[in-house]
Amino acid sequence: MKSKSPVIIDLKFDREQVAAALKGAFADREVIDLAHPANKTRDLSGIDYAVVWKPAADLFSRAKDLRAVFSGGAGVDHVMTLPGLPEVPVVRFVDQTLTTRMSEWVVLQCLLHLRQFRAYEAQNRKRIWRELDQPEAREVTVGIMGLGVLGADAASKLKMLGFDVVGWSRRKKAIDGIETFDAAGLDDFLARTDILVGLLPLTAETRGLFNAGLFAKLRRNGALGAPVFVNAGRGGSQVEADILAALDSGVLGGASLDVFEKEPLPLESRLWTHEKVFMTPHAAAASDVRALFAHVGRQIERLENGQALENVVDRQAGY
Amino acid sequence: MKSKSPVIIDLKFDREQVAAALKGAFADREVIDLAHPANKTRDLSGIDYAVVWKPAADLFSRAKDLRAVFSGGAGVDHVMTLPGLPEVPVVRFVDQTLTTRMSEWVVLQCLLHLRQFRAYEAQNRKRIWRELDQPEAREVTVGIMGLGVLGADAASKLKMLGFDVVGWSRRKKAIDGIETFDAAGLDDFLARTDILVGLLPLTAETRGLFNAGLFAKLRRNGALGAPVFVNAGRGGSQVEADILAALDSGVLGGASLDVFEKEPLPLESRLWTHEKVFMTPHAAAASDVRALFAHVGRQIERLENGQALENVVDRQAGY
Ligand SMILES: NC(=O)c1ccc[n+]([C@@H]2O[C@H](COP(=O)([O-])OP(=O)(O)OC[C@H]3O[C@@H](n4cnc5c(N)ncnc54)[C@H](OP(=O)(O)O)[C@@H]3O)[C@@H](O)[C@H]2O)c1
Ligand SMILES: NC(=O)c1ccc[n+]([C@@H]2O[C@H](COP(=O)([O-])OP(=O)(O)OC[C@H]3O[C@@H](n4cnc5c(N)ncnc54)[C@H](OP(=O)(O)O)[C@@H]3O)[C@@H](O)[C@H]2O)c1
Repeated sequence: MKSKSPVIIDLKFDREQVAAALKGAFADREVIDLAHPANKTRDLSGIDYAVVWKPAADLFSRAKDLRAVFSGGAGVDHVMTLPGLPEVPVVRFVDQTLTTRMSEWVVLQCLLHLRQFRAYEAQNRKRIWRELDQPEAREVTVGIMGLGVLGADAASKLKMLGFDVVGWSRRKKAIDGIETFDAAGLDDFLARTDILVGLLPLTAETRGLFNAGLFAKLRRNGALGAPVFVNAGRGGSQVEADILAALDSGVLGGASLDVFEKEPLPLESRLWTHEKVFMTPHAAAASDVRALFAHVGRQIERLENGQALENVVDRQAGY
Repeated sequence: MKSKSPVIIDLKFDREQVAAALKGAFADREVIDLAHPANKTRDLSGIDYAVVWKPAADLFSRAKDLRAVFSGGAGVDHVMTLPGLPEVPVVRFVDQTLTTRMSEWVVLQCLLHLRQFRAYEAQNRKRIWRELDQPEAREVTVGIMGLGVLGADAASKLKMLGFDVVGWSRRKKAIDGIETFDAAGLDDFLARTDILVGLLPLTAETRGLFNAGLFAKLRRNGALGAPVFVNAGRGGSQVEADILAALDSGVLGGASLDVFEKEPLPLESRLWTHEKVFMTPHAAAASDVRALFAHVGRQIERLENGQALENVVDRQAGY
């Protein structure tokens, strides 16, 4: 029996987290952590697997014989555009922890807007005791763009909390209790939507999608007064100048952003402290490194047992 | 056939809302709205029903023949202590709208604390881009005190979002997936709890319950660092001086309050703008006046058809 291939780790994550997670991971094979100086010049030919997030520019020229590349994150836009990426399966990271955390974030943002959080904070600063007119969740339609692993989970949790939920994806989905639209139904979907939630991958098709033209198509006479934009997919899908203009002109009533065109968000951006914006620093759903290694271990085991890899990226679609 | 008894309305709610809701309500009987000057001196003897919230001091001496009193709110502490309250059934307001709204509020508060909302806002003000260590909902135990209509709904929604949930009530309850405790199990319940949610009625037994001694029994080594206190039951159950002292000393890490010992909250209270406190002006779950009248109409119909009234207050227990 051929001995088991080592696995290359090239993750530009927090070093301590990676080191801690590597303890006990991949018990049955060698780990080559490229963060170790000793591995700088090591021969990587003949090695089957690499787990990557912003890898070294020369990784794929050094590791010429990879059979599979594992993305350190759920989004693979960073990986698919890597120069020299070999023509082997790219596996993305899908995990219950990540999904649950994302839905926590999405539900929190929708409730912040529904329950007029900023208006109450402003009253509190002035010590004004006044109950505001308050629509109920079912009077507000959350429209989710992207009904994949993350979008579907968020949809069902928002529904259960009482929101009216509609969804949009490339290929039409059937989800209980939720009206769904496909690519061609975009305008109808937008016309129904009070809170737009972006959970899309960044691809050629989704780049710059959330722009002035799209915001103008959202429902204008909804229960929140003006529509709200929430994005936790990828910043490249949004046009931040258009978001700011729409907030200032009232086309949008508010926004929640976890992702940005440029990350970290440039210091001069008005989004940091905009009265109508809630923002977090790409922290909606962190990749749990332990869970990542367990997932990679499971997929390698499948491959070596002759089973198909799961969550393989469709190169044509780009996600 | 005896003609149908009128119904007296004495609700110190927003006048416009009451007037709007009265249009079309109680179609089969006369409405005597005590807010109308013409009704100031009207003979109220022989009338069977009154819907009240902070009613006139002389209401019960004028309306001597009431067969049932309907509370304008879900909480009846204001009603049960009214001088001259007759020995007839007091019916409290239970409605899906109110329940759903309360769960929106409770879920929002739990997520604000879980997802370190204030810490991120502080970073944003300084334009610091840094992801914080983030426990997942399942690592955090929400302990709900009061598993009635509101507590049970909040429990199941928090559970579904991923929180570990435990509950406490006078009589032990069986709720799927949730560990429950009865009155005698209070200390064990508190020792398990990271976020304490109060959804209790105000009674002789619950007055002043949320005090320094109770806060000291909450779990100290939980995933949030320090326990959090959330209250949307009644302000009379909490000791605000103890909440502030516990926040300042670190016994509590945060609080969310919708109810207060004195409402409106006095201008001098530090709770208005405390860095660790989220507050709303008794707005967690407004009584929808239309829904209230529909509910009263249904109960009157039950009574006149010889069926038992629902949601009748237990005078002994006080709720
Ligand atoms: N902020 C964070 O912390 C964070 C964390 C994790 C992930 N993310 C982002 O979230 C994204 C979604 O994750 P996921 O796991 O849910 O991905 P997924 O399972 O691949 O789902 C992607 C969804 O987007 C839809 N979609 C893709 N391109 C589209 C297009 N051009 N038009 C319409 N719909 C399109 C897909 O449609 P089909 O169903 O028809 O394929 C699918 O429903 C990731 O790609 C990543 O960028 C962010
Ligand atoms: N902030 C707002 O906007 C707002 C809106 C509506 C209501 N409220 C408040 O919320 C309260 C709860 O409403 P609800 O409809 O859920 O009431 P409910 O159905 O009567 O439930 C009350 C719960 O509290 C428990 N309980 C009462 N006294 C107790 C004691 N001494 N020790 C332990 N448990 C005790 C009861 O135990 P058992 O199950 O054993 O009876 C029951 O589980 C209302 O009374 C009202 O004050 C606030």
